[in-house]
Amino acid sequence: MPTVMLTGPSGFLGSHLLYRLLREPEVRVHAVARTGTGRTHERLTWHRGDLLEPGLASRLMAEIRPTHLLHNAWFAVPGRFWSDPSNLAWLRASVDLMAAFAAASGQRFVGVGTCAEYDWTGTEPYAEDRTPIRPATLYGKAKAACWAAAQVFEAAGSFQAAWGRIFLPYGPGDTTGRLLPSLMCELRAGRPMSLGDGSLERDFIYAADAADLLVRMLMSQANGAFNVASGQATTLQVAIDHVADRLGRRDLLRFGERPTPVNEPSRLVADPTKVRETLGWTPQTSLLHGLDTVLQSSLQGHQ
Amino acid sequence: MPTVMLTGPSGFLGSHLLYRLLREPEVRVHAVARTGTGRTHERLTWHRGDLLEPGLASRLMAEIRPTHLLHNAWFAVPGRFWSDPSNLAWLRASVDLMAAFAAASGQRFVGVGTCAEYDWTGTEPYAEDRTPIRPATLYGKAKAACWAAAQVFEAAGSFQAAWGRIFLPYGPGDTTGRLLPSLMCELRAGRPMSLGDGSLERDFIYAADAADLLVRMLMSQANGAFNVASGQATTLQVAIDHVADRLGRRDLLRFGERPTPVNEPSRLVADPTKVRETLGWTPQTSLLHGLDTVLQSSLQGHQ
Repeated sequence: MPTVMLTGPSGFLGSHLLYRLLREPEVRVHAVARTGTGRTHERLTWHRGDLLEPGLASRLMAEIRPTHLLHNAWFAVPGRFWSDPSNLAWLRASVDLMAAFAAASGQRFVGVGTCAEYDWTGTEPYAEDRTPIRPATLYGKAKAACWAAAQVFEAAGSFQAAWGRIFLPYGPGDTTGRLLPSLMCELRAGRPMSLGDGSLERDFIYAADAADLLVRMLMSQANGAFNVASGQATTLQVAIDHVADRLGRRDLLRFGERPTPVNEPSRLVADPTKVRETLGWTPQTSLLHGLDTVLQSSLQGHQ
Repeated sequence: MPTVMLTGPSGFLGSHLLYRLLREPEVRVHAVARTGTGRTHERLTWHRGDLLEPGLASRLMAEIRPTHLLHNAWFAVPGRFWSDPSNLAWLRASVDLMAAFAAASGQRFVGVGTCAEYDWTGTEPYAEDRTPIRPATLYGKAKAACWAAAQVFEAAGSFQAAWGRIFLPYGPGDTTGRLLPSLMCELRAGRPMSLGDGSLERDFIYAADAADLLVRMLMSQANGAFNVASGQATTLQVAIDHVADRLGRRDLLRFGERPTPVNEPSRLVADPTKVRETLGWTPQTSLLHGLDTVLQSSLQGHQ
């Protein structure tokens, strides 16, 4: 029976990962979190701990001896994660975690990367093995260095490794201050929403789909980097209009009130070919259906 | 007065780096080596230590408090360095060294990388910011990960960083079992030399020129990766014939006796543009002149 260690199980994506892991039959899950508690399940054990604390990874690995490591923990405070110095601490902690995993005879590592590892100056769909890795941000650089280090462990014979570069996750439970949750909150409160021109094209991935792909990667033998994405480019306007229509508040949208960010790429979309051909995976949830589910789920949260 | 820590000062390239550093006026040099001894100079201090020993980097950095770090040490046993597991240990030790340098308020880091970081499937000259980083070997992956980590330190505000991707160094003092020293040894002993077809094109860089460029990088404020190369493609046959002619033993060359390696690129040459335009640097020593110097110097060694 595979024994999986999941780091960062309490956040937005992490809670979807934990839910999906427990649906995998015959898998024992060890969740490592600073809080040390969460949902209960007969195959789930919680461990309290901060991975930035030196020595913790070694102690946990020696105790748990996981066969699989799904490494999702990172500094993730909205707005701050792009340039916070703790990205460096998370890189170093991740290398220590991988070393401890290798020392405990771990077999398979999957880490959560980011589309921000890619060179963002192109507008072609980003392909894992063709688009240059040229991160412009501290966050993107730290994630890219983490994957580079994982490949060294793999090449040295420590463990097999794969890496999921996640695009724009959204879904139930996202209260992170990102665009879509903020939009829903403002429109429901009857407040006008100040927006850019809506022309930016993005690749939204439903969080449960992202979790499904990452867990399939973990349970597969496919190595290398994979885009965790829908492969569909959607303008922000399409997503925003859909939410506003469902809430009957298109009148509150203020497109063009904000300047279009100059440092952001006009088009940020994944090439889904490698994931489809290597893993046979395609996302299950269309953006409009996914948005409807979020609207219903957050409505329940409001009641 | 800048205080430079040089790691790996005792090997082939390292001894050229040390010699060149001491020609830099007003620089104090601290050389860290397992042997702990070597040439003497009024501005040079030797430190005995193995950087793979945990904690050593922190102790040395706290004691020396270098403003500049020139990180050349690595596992370098000929033939074995490509795939030896200690590449992983050297990556981890290098990250620890950088962390200790940052903690000691170090300002500028230069590391020695390799042309093996590049994707070797192309035949165009390799350009630092255009050729994909896609190392095929453990050595290349570990060096690429080391530079990726250095860029995270830089982006986090720890220190400024540059990286020299060295092509094929040669020069006096090279007794490493590489092609040219082996060739000279065999021809002088009157033994026939078994060779491939000689058609591979390589970028040879005279070791003193390589050391000059790396030290200039260290003393400059230019960040990023730079090719440490001549920018000239030479077939192996041209270099081999020149050595054989100087020794009057072309009769001993056996071109075509060995198969041409299938995993090696037919053409491996640097684009020198970035180094020239950013640092105003060009190599001083032509290949044929450099080979003559090696022949004279190794002749002295033979007498």
